[in-house]
Amino acid sequence: MILTSGEVDAIAGLLTLRERQPFTLFASERVLSILAANPIFDVLQRDIVQRQSVLAGARFVLPCGLQATLFAVPGKVPLYLERGTASAASEDDVFGVELSDGHRRALFIPGCASIDDSLRARLRDADLLFFDGTLWEDDEMIQRGLGPKTGRRMGHMPVYGKGGTLDSLADLPIARKILIHINNSNPILDRSSAEHAAVRAAGWDVAHDGMEITA
Amino acid sequence: MILTSGEVDAIAGLLTLRERQPFTLFASERVLSILAANPIFDVLQRDIVQRQSVLAGARFVLPCGLQATLFAVPGKVPLYLERGTASAASEDDVFGVELSDGHRRALFIPGCASIDDSLRARLRDADLLFFDGTLWEDDEMIQRGLGPKTGRRMGHMPVYGKGGTLDSLADLPIARKILIHINNSNPILDRSSAEHAAVRAAGWDVAHDGMEITA
Repeated sequence: MILTSGEVDAIAGLLTLRERQPFTLFASERVLSILAANPIFDVLQRDIVQRQSVLAGARFVLPCGLQATLFAVPGKVPLYLERGTASAASEDDVFGVELSDGHRRALFIPGCASIDDSLRARLRDADLLFFDGTLWEDDEMIQRGLGPKTGRRMGHMPVYGKGGTLDSLADLPIARKILIHINNSNPILDRSSAEHAAVRAAGWDVAHDGMEITA
Repeated sequence: MILTSGEVDAIAGLLTLRERQPFTLFASERVLSILAANPIFDVLQRDIVQRQSVLAGARFVLPCGLQATLFAVPGKVPLYLERGTASAASEDDVFGVELSDGHRRALFIPGCASIDDSLRARLRDADLLFFDGTLWEDDEMIQRGLGPKTGRRMGHMPVYGKGGTLDSLADLPIARKILIHINNSNPILDRSSAEHAAVRAAGWDVAHDGMEITA
């Protein structure tokens, strides 16, 4: 198990893995410390579920033989750990994962606030990209009366619009691109919508439950 | 939402209810304090999800109009809050819920370590009972190599055997009885098993996902 952040949607699923199944939890020291400070995660007993701290940029080998690397992406601290006003992005709070079999590279980036040069360089020529598709438009939650926050305030760049994901990655060679981590307000979830069609026309797929990817 | 304990299987589901949906959380002061001490439950924003402390034995009215009462049952502190050896049962850690429309009574008791006289009196003449069906036999987890603990050590009396649930409640008039909170090691989940047949023969149903009860 690789954790890319301490955000609740990244870690709450751990609570369903508490049936004494042995596995290793790979995460940054910061994310492991969030778990360690919270007694509810002691349901994953330490003699059964090993914690392994990994450094951003350092390659590690998974039990399945794949190589994995965590890399920092622009983001923010977990919402539920904010104190007062929005905290600035931190190098140690939000990660992507690169998986490689030595030949091909898959990238998993469920939360990303913006795309900087370092991230662009990593995305170039990837064989498979799973990318943050939280919101279609930055102010979608506000428009629909679902909440007071913009996507960027939550650490997620929008899919659509200038500076959005489709726009930002249009010129980068990436073999396969799939939007994940899609909020229920995002119209791309409706496969008959114009927004879904626009995403497909831009060369992206929309992830769905039970989706399987074969090489 | 009514919480009957601070155990992880009673509270982890709250984390899936964080989409700014307004509701009221009814629980004992002790269970609310477990939530309040854990920042991950701040995903249920206090201005949207009201916390209401209720006392054991005190009737309160739900938004749907039903009357509800929490009552203490023999149990134990949540496993993940144990420090060192097993903690003794506490009056404030494990509850059942009685629901009433003023005429008929339904009882919900997902965890129960034993049946005492007070509980027997409450169960008598209930119209509907949902009861702790965690394990078939007390040492089932040990027998199957799934874990080192007995059911009683986890705060759950077994379904089968002398002093088990079927035996203990055989002579009590209860209109409908349904086993819930069933561990994946419990053979009653297999509808073709002898144990399932024995439960049915004793006048009990086995709950299943999507089960609906109509009066």
